[in-house]
Amino acid sequence: MSDVLSIDPRTGTVRGRVATEATAEDVDRAVRAAAAAGAALRDRARRADLLRTAATLLEKSGEEIVATADAESALGSVRLTGELARTCYQLRAFADVVDSGAYLDVVVNHADPSAVPAPRPDLRRLNVPLGVVAVFAASNFPLAFSVPGGDTASALAAGCPVVVKAHPDHPATSVLCARILRAAAAEVGLPEDVVQLVHGFDAGPELVRHSLTAAVGFTGSVRGGRALFDIASSRPRPIPFHGELGSLNPVVVTERAAETRADEIGTGLAASYTLGMGQFCVKPGLVLVPAGPAGDAVVRAVATAEVPSGPMLDPRMREAFLAGVRARAALPGVEEVLVAGEAGDDGTPLAVRPGVLTVAAARLTGGPHDELFEECFGPVTVLVRYGSAAERDAVLAALPGTLTATVHLAADERGGAAADLLAALSGIAGRVVVDGWPTGVTVAPAMQHGGPYPAATTPATSVGSGAIARWLRPVCYQNVPDPLLPPELREANPLRLPRTVDGVRTV
Amino acid sequence: MSDVLSIDPRTGTVRGRVATEATAEDVDRAVRAAAAAGAALRDRARRADLLRTAATLLEKSGEEIVATADAESALGSVRLTGELARTCYQLRAFADVVDSGAYLDVVVNHADPSAVPAPRPDLRRLNVPLGVVAVFAASNFPLAFSVPGGDTASALAAGCPVVVKAHPDHPATSVLCARILRAAAAEVGLPEDVVQLVHGFDAGPELVRHSLTAAVGFTGSVRGGRALFDIASSRPRPIPFHGELGSLNPVVVTERAAETRADEIGTGLAASYTLGMGQFCVKPGLVLVPAGPAGDAVVRAVATAEVPSGPMLDPRMREAFLAGVRARAALPGVEEVLVAGEAGDDGTPLAVRPGVLTVAAARLTGGPHDELFEECFGPVTVLVRYGSAAERDAVLAALPGTLTATVHLAADERGGAAADLLAALSGIAGRVVVDGWPTGVTVAPAMQHGGPYPAATTPATSVGSGAIARWLRPVCYQNVPDPLLPPELREANPLRLPRTVDGVRTV
Repeated sequence: MSDVLSIDPRTGTVRGRVATEATAEDVDRAVRAAAAAGAALRDRARRADLLRTAATLLEKSGEEIVATADAESALGSVRLTGELARTCYQLRAFADVVDSGAYLDVVVNHADPSAVPAPRPDLRRLNVPLGVVAVFAASNFPLAFSVPGGDTASALAAGCPVVVKAHPDHPATSVLCARILRAAAAEVGLPEDVVQLVHGFDAGPELVRHSLTAAVGFTGSVRGGRALFDIASSRPRPIPFHGELGSLNPVVVTERAAETRADEIGTGLAASYTLGMGQFCVKPGLVLVPAGPAGDAVVRAVATAEVPSGPMLDPRMREAFLAGVRARAALPGVEEVLVAGEAGDDGTPLAVRPGVLTVAAARLTGGPHDELFEECFGPVTVLVRYGSAAERDAVLAALPGTLTATVHLAADERGGAAADLLAALSGIAGRVVVDGWPTGVTVAPAMQHGGPYPAATTPATSVGSGAIARWLRPVCYQNVPDPLLPPELREANPLRLPRTVDGVRTV
Repeated sequence: MSDVLSIDPRTGTVRGRVATEATAEDVDRAVRAAAAAGAALRDRARRADLLRTAATLLEKSGEEIVATADAESALGSVRLTGELARTCYQLRAFADVVDSGAYLDVVVNHADPSAVPAPRPDLRRLNVPLGVVAVFAASNFPLAFSVPGGDTASALAAGCPVVVKAHPDHPATSVLCARILRAAAAEVGLPEDVVQLVHGFDAGPELVRHSLTAAVGFTGSVRGGRALFDIASSRPRPIPFHGELGSLNPVVVTERAAETRADEIGTGLAASYTLGMGQFCVKPGLVLVPAGPAGDAVVRAVATAEVPSGPMLDPRMREAFLAGVRARAALPGVEEVLVAGEAGDDGTPLAVRPGVLTVAAARLTGGPHDELFEECFGPVTVLVRYGSAAERDAVLAALPGTLTATVHLAADERGGAAADLLAALSGIAGRVVVDGWPTGVTVAPAMQHGGPYPAATTPATSVGSGAIARWLRPVCYQNVPDPLLPPELREANPLRLPRTVDGVRTV
């Protein structure tokens, strides 16, 4: 059994041993325990209670959580305090989703013996939970996309027990949060086993392969995510794999926008690509800036903006960032207008400095620059200078699927050309932003956090109330006598659920 | 280039050559043409027109379509006339879905600078079409699950152009229907290329592999479907594969039900498992009947009911049916209470006779009888005799995922035991039927035609208005100025769409 170590990313030193890596038997035990506890989650009111109680208990232990997460992630207590607030908000938002019952999507069609072209039986449909959900915690959100994060919250809201695979960057935070979630379950009278935690690299594939695992939620790299997606898809019984893998988050700055507000755009971009040391899935990684003086001013503003140095989430990621920047900077025609690199001079031995690269758009449509179409995790962005709308559109057409796409317009650009640009962006992205920055993903019903592959492996969203749909499947009841129907479907609607009855929405 | 032949399944003789098998280049051309025509489908009103006009034109050519389909499928003109009516109903139902706009699932969250835990931007979401949909036609529904069937109708409704891979059992019907769909497109001012047809075994994998294919709809066998699912999942950019593969459609007859209405259940089952010569994905393939005299009466009623002989859809399927029945009948403990086999004595050389097998439930929980848990396509059903509720439940727990599960109850069984049974069935099925038969899939919003693998590869439905969701993905617009928003999302709601605005449903 290998020890699971908590490591300080500022120095690379070991903080302590917090757990042991799960063996295949451990994973089996965790999945079976979760599955056995699943029936208790049928109680909708108790599930809502669980989510709200978890939020309360997390807040109660807020100081310890933030301190532990900061010691393991170096994300800082301001950001982590905000992330904890977001995490608790999300848990409560999913409790509201459970209470509303809209996610059940109840549809009733009464029998109609005279229907054309064939008589209709009585049909009633609702959504039911899939079963045990495997959740893969993300490196860059020790809370909001990890043990108590959106995948866990939405799965529990759906009525699915979860087995979380902890991220190796924050095992102590994971243990702490899992303990709190399990305590919340006990407090509301549910079995603690509805939440399980496993550690270790090998636990991941084991978890996805397990016959009782019914679905997977993943946030991480293209390489890791694709490997697990392939396992999920090649099982004897394939299961849904909702993965958020990699995203370039292109930004387009129009000529007129550059002419009218180069400084604002440049400093805004600098703040966005360095936020959280560039360790966001929605970091703007490729920015189309017009060639010529107006675009030059944008480049100047980005390159000269004050940007922070700091540590990354772990030493391996730091090496990958430095190597990724070096490889891109070495491509023909790529210039470093702000040189990224090691920055141990501020007392944080493993700190890095952000960087900005530029390249002509014409270089990107031909092959050897394919690396520029791949996400480079960390504080670096690539400014692609385009000489014409055609050059710009050729780059957009070559981009892979992405979580977000952003455009900066001038105030008078409200016509066909801008609309065409937005249409092109909506073809490759899950979210289209105007005059803002993609960083900052609002937890709201209208949010779509996902996008064409490799941004995500399915068309689902992993943020916002719609995320619950990933863990549900519909079941239709045909001619079932009223007393034998689930209460959600009974004629008198005893649970007062919103339903669509013979085409009419009732609330 | 190989010829595509239309074959008479009653005699095995060649009716004629109707097309040539598509080469890789043909498939490429078809997908590109469909993709190029896709933009025209953005016009919602025209899409609804297309679907309604297609229904009208299909009806106009009804006699020719039914005659051609009967000559190729031997399903008979009564059934095929009904199937055509259902197909046209379905096309019109999806036109109504397009008109209603509910499938767009528009959600608006206005900006809220004072929101906690973080200020909210203006967010507006709607569903957009995925792109070119590959549709694999089913052998057993030359119309309703083939060229003009539910996958095509729902994809076009979503705004996706389609490339249909014709089923080799009915190429002439496919050519005829594709011509009519393309004529309908032309009639409403859309490019004919929104519907494409390709033939030939190799065209299938080519179509799934094509970089511009965005999603797949499939109805067919576990073997064929899984092979194509694997291709879809292992592409560089994986795509959604909505497949309906195989289903056992278990039926449970309770002791009390057998006691009170053995004859009714037996004759009902005989009619259901032989309907369409047992060539339905929802054919009841495994029936749990109590041991003892009450159950014996059910078995007697099934085995002695008058059942039709007739041809199957094609000679290969006929061979597979006969071999499948022989293999199952040879298993230890399996008895043939009605012997299936060849039945060329009615003037139809390739006809078969239905069959009924019985086996003790205790035989099924151990391994060598695994074939009884696999669908045997054609007019055969297996009656599994259970001695106790525990034996019955052990069989149910071992069953694979299924499209439907049915229970026959006595009129006074409305309590906990019956409810527990229904709960167990809902755990493995997409549709639960009481006191009826699974054959006959109603086209209605509350329908769920799907189920845990291998019944289906995803939790989606392929029948009913919900089927449109398979071809859509959400896009969120953040802080987009009103004139640049898609009309569906504009503040004034110019298209009068149903929307959820800041949590309030508006119609």
